[in-house]
Amino acid sequence: MAKVRLYIAQSLDGFIANLDGGIGWLDRFNQESGEDYGYKAFYGQIGTLLMGGNTYAQVLGFAPEYVHSDRRTLVFTSRPLPVHLGVELVTGDPVPVVRAQKAQADQDLWLVGGGQLVRTLHQAKLIDELILSLIPVTLGAGIPLFAGLAQETFWTLAQTQSFQSGIVQLVYRPLYP
Amino acid sequence: MAKVRLYIAQSLDGFIANLDGGIGWLDRFNQESGEDYGYKAFYGQIGTLLMGGNTYAQVLGFAPEYVHSDRRTLVFTSRPLPVHLGVELVTGDPVPVVRAQKAQADQDLWLVGGGQLVRTLHQAKLIDELILSLIPVTLGAGIPLFAGLAQETFWTLAQTQSFQSGIVQLVYRPLYP
Repeated sequence: MAKVRLYIAQSLDGFIANLDGGIGWLDRFNQESGEDYGYKAFYGQIGTLLMGGNTYAQVLGFAPEYVHSDRRTLVFTSRPLPVHLGVELVTGDPVPVVRAQKAQADQDLWLVGGGQLVRTLHQAKLIDELILSLIPVTLGAGIPLFAGLAQETFWTLAQTQSFQSGIVQLVYRPLYP
Repeated sequence: MAKVRLYIAQSLDGFIANLDGGIGWLDRFNQESGEDYGYKAFYGQIGTLLMGGNTYAQVLGFAPEYVHSDRRTLVFTSRPLPVHLGVELVTGDPVPVVRAQKAQADQDLWLVGGGQLVRTLHQAKLIDELILSLIPVTLGAGIPLFAGLAQETFWTLAQTQSFQSGIVQLVYRPLYP
């Protein structure tokens, strides 16, 4: 069975983006000499990306081409967004769709975001792994990763790794109540 | 010069307490067999505790006696709170008081919380160290540690340690802009 893996960067104070969606505070880490924080190895295990409409629109804003056309991407949205190679727009409840993907897929699913999709899939106990890159910055305000989560959830710590830049990568698996 | 050290436990999603101030999700870790997460060693380096009125009131609620009477405690508040052994209520701006303490004290100062005092001292660039015990739980809502911080701040990672329970302790020093 394929795993749904939430692979995401978060500030020390729990935000994945500024209030306006900006992630400029990540720039100094992206530009670091050659360190990819395990991204290539992770991406090699991924067959399908899962994201909400806002996240997709934002990814499109970062580059002239859609950078994940080498994978399948399911965008859960009711908005008419541009469809790039490999992208499917999915309307309606993501839960049965993702459940079916988990059962059928050969490779893992990367849950990219955003918050609403994360909440929905967490509520349905469909998230199998959280790979959290903790960025050594405090923002004071921003878009939280888990805001509005209905249930308190404990996680087991599977792995930790710290990098020269001060980023700490933590791998957790949920203990769903 | 003595250091102001913010030693605090936080959920994975950046909260130090539930919305009602509750920290019941910490219970399963407190009760763990003998592991004190470096608390005794840390406390041994502390001469003075710094906290806001709400935090002090909450600490008083945990036990029949004030548990830090073996240290000096400065409570920054304008509320008439009960004064236990070692406790001084301080009204007015905490910044000059803490600045003077840092210059005079032989031992370090533990910034216990809460949010308003943390913001004020961070704004004045008086926090020297953040010792963050990252609890493997997501709450979805709660009281954030750094909410309302005016400036984006980068931190250097000084130390990491992970525990059997899944708690990860991270030590950071601020790079004030």
